[in-house]
Amino acid sequence: MESSRTQPPGLALSAKAQRTPESPISELMAAAIANPAMVNLAAGFVDDRTLPVDECAAIARRIFSDPGRGQAALQYDTTLGLRPLRQQLLSHLERLEGRSSAELGFGIEDILVTTGSQQALYLVGDVLVDPGDIVIAANPSYFVFTGTLQSLGARVLGVPADDQGLDVDAVGWLLERLAAEGRLPRVRFIYITSYCDNPTGLTLGADRRRRLVELVRRYSRDHRILILEDAAYRELRYDGESPPSIKSFDRGNEHVILSQTFSKPFAPGLKLGYTVMPRGLMGPVLRQKGNHDFGSANLCQQIALEAMRDGSYDRHVALLRVEYRRKRDAMLAALDRHLGHCPGIHWTRPHGGMYIWLTLPEWLDTSRRGTIFSACVERGVLYVPGDLSFHPDDSGQIPRNHVRLSFGQVALEQIEPGIQRLAAVVREQVARGGAA
Amino acid sequence: MESSRTQPPGLALSAKAQRTPESPISELMAAAIANPAMVNLAAGFVDDRTLPVDECAAIARRIFSDPGRGQAALQYDTTLGLRPLRQQLLSHLERLEGRSSAELGFGIEDILVTTGSQQALYLVGDVLVDPGDIVIAANPSYFVFTGTLQSLGARVLGVPADDQGLDVDAVGWLLERLAAEGRLPRVRFIYITSYCDNPTGLTLGADRRRRLVELVRRYSRDHRILILEDAAYRELRYDGESPPSIKSFDRGNEHVILSQTFSKPFAPGLKLGYTVMPRGLMGPVLRQKGNHDFGSANLCQQIALEAMRDGSYDRHVALLRVEYRRKRDAMLAALDRHLGHCPGIHWTRPHGGMYIWLTLPEWLDTSRRGTIFSACVERGVLYVPGDLSFHPDDSGQIPRNHVRLSFGQVALEQIEPGIQRLAAVVREQVARGGAA
Repeated sequence: MESSRTQPPGLALSAKAQRTPESPISELMAAAIANPAMVNLAAGFVDDRTLPVDECAAIARRIFSDPGRGQAALQYDTTLGLRPLRQQLLSHLERLEGRSSAELGFGIEDILVTTGSQQALYLVGDVLVDPGDIVIAANPSYFVFTGTLQSLGARVLGVPADDQGLDVDAVGWLLERLAAEGRLPRVRFIYITSYCDNPTGLTLGADRRRRLVELVRRYSRDHRILILEDAAYRELRYDGESPPSIKSFDRGNEHVILSQTFSKPFAPGLKLGYTVMPRGLMGPVLRQKGNHDFGSANLCQQIALEAMRDGSYDRHVALLRVEYRRKRDAMLAALDRHLGHCPGIHWTRPHGGMYIWLTLPEWLDTSRRGTIFSACVERGVLYVPGDLSFHPDDSGQIPRNHVRLSFGQVALEQIEPGIQRLAAVVREQVARGGAA
Repeated sequence: MESSRTQPPGLALSAKAQRTPESPISELMAAAIANPAMVNLAAGFVDDRTLPVDECAAIARRIFSDPGRGQAALQYDTTLGLRPLRQQLLSHLERLEGRSSAELGFGIEDILVTTGSQQALYLVGDVLVDPGDIVIAANPSYFVFTGTLQSLGARVLGVPADDQGLDVDAVGWLLERLAAEGRLPRVRFIYITSYCDNPTGLTLGADRRRRLVELVRRYSRDHRILILEDAAYRELRYDGESPPSIKSFDRGNEHVILSQTFSKPFAPGLKLGYTVMPRGLMGPVLRQKGNHDFGSANLCQQIALEAMRDGSYDRHVALLRVEYRRKRDAMLAALDRHLGHCPGIHWTRPHGGMYIWLTLPEWLDTSRRGTIFSACVERGVLYVPGDLSFHPDDSGQIPRNHVRLSFGQVALEQIEPGIQRLAAVVREQVARGGAA
């Protein structure tokens, strides 16, 4: 590259590429990589120590010791996904719901295997959303997907949540207002993480599930409004009973897309998710997926199939429940110890998943540009600033006094020092604010 | 689902979903599945019998017998792809080009690992194309990707090809015409399968490669025009020397996207591809890929890494060259035997890849609706009708007298009976036409 070389002209990027900003996660990851001693309470990763290495070793041995099976695993399969895997997934969903597939109203042809559940979320957005279309989501929500929606041009309308998750009454009022304004035709779907939400850790109450389905039925006037139920954390439940899915109230398989994953309950390295698509949606989604990749890695699908068949999937989920429960309890205890009885400071007490949502006094700023974040990075603890998970409200405001804490990847013994460092920073800031 | 249930209203699909038709491949696959005795000269699949089962067995054993390595393989990695794999891929490209990375002008940060090379093609289209934008491609071209481009709203302009592949003079005339018409600002890239093209089997001549890069430089006036070089079949070369890539003439890494894959030279079940992105393109592509999946299956990347490190990748490519050469030679010999000396019938003699392009007299119709296709299916031989690979010319016409033959998946001993059946149908049709 000669120094005399002239700069080439710039690229002409698509409108969508121009709408797609850098993910804020990159910056967080860079901070984590820069300091290996950092206690990482930011990462939504699962715990290295609980990954099913021995199980996958045995499964890979079994697959490759049968030449026919080994060949099949290394060959292409269909875009929809490996048929026996979809059969296992249907049985798995039947067990989770406590209902037969006939009662549930869907079968193996309604299940799509994807490259992580993220791909399914993307594909659903892509086949439903044109710029200006409306998606309703809890505020706060899983920010990677609301970012994807904005990249697709969606207008994401946030609805508040309380201890029971998304406020379904507020969804009803919003739909009514949109109807009155003539904007109902632009509403495409409601996005919700229905179990142990990212970022709040909260689970949508059972009664709200039924009502949410009733709402989309009622407002599906000139077109069908859908619910995209992201159930990534469903199986990571540590106490109490899990409610049935929102999907279970959609008996005709008409309104609810149910998306689950192998990444959280088994192994993210397989990068596999699976989704039940309502009637009429599978065709368009499948055609897009054909354009993306003609089907997700078949070897990974064969491994997932074996893990479900030989019981190692179920055993692994049982193990994770024990391990993650311990870490959740350690984090709650550390929060009690270091931030208990602080006025204006409280946090959620989730029944599962890997997130705790910490609320600080409103005048404190946890965002990446604030002093709390930089002081925490300096002391060696990383969190996800809560503002990343919010969409602006009607007045364009975003709360900046929240923190998403993850007990996913962090080692049990790192939780106490991590929370201690965070709490020290918070208490100093509170003291400073009180003194000011 | 009560019979009294009223139909729910229809879905409101995005403009893109509405632009995306069913892939013609589904119909061909259904025909193949319906008759297991069918000789399948249609599938672009690789040969089951040459898949690297033993190699992958040994690699999986090695990965999972080291707990740290096993955990890493089952965990998330970055969206860009596993760093040591990208390092191996860079060395691999250096060897293929016979040049150092400094000479080539790109490094490991310019290489993206994707879910098959198809995902890379899709992502490039997605970040560059808005509806109405122009992509230039050979006519005929790889129809899955030109279908994807049309789904993105691109206007695909076809340029003829001859024995040396894409007619680069014709590309120059087209660019000049577009410039004169003021349409140059809409031109995004030139798509080309540069080695052993799908569907023709032809390889772009060495001199044309340099001229193609000069052309896009010259016409990059207000924005940068790119070349998307799809080199999926590059390593499946059976005789003679492979020319250097088009990319090798793009010394500043400014204009040429080079996409390669593990699917053809190693194993499609890993569903991995890799792409060198020119300056400024990686960021936008990576942001889209983050929205799709945050990175392709890490386990597969670890396997590919080991295959490159321990030499099994190279040994496998050498084996494939022997096996596929044998099948290509068998297919060419069968064509000579059964269709040699037929007036108006000729075919390509590719140096590699898995396709032979058969041309029949113009008045014969090989399309799915024609009698040749249905007669072949009845006799038990399947091909890809050539019309699927064409875009309409200025007058809206598509030639219907071509056949894409693949020696990829078919067993060596099935080639002779397959070509015999096809030739019998063709000769009957010719005789009928001659009699009429």
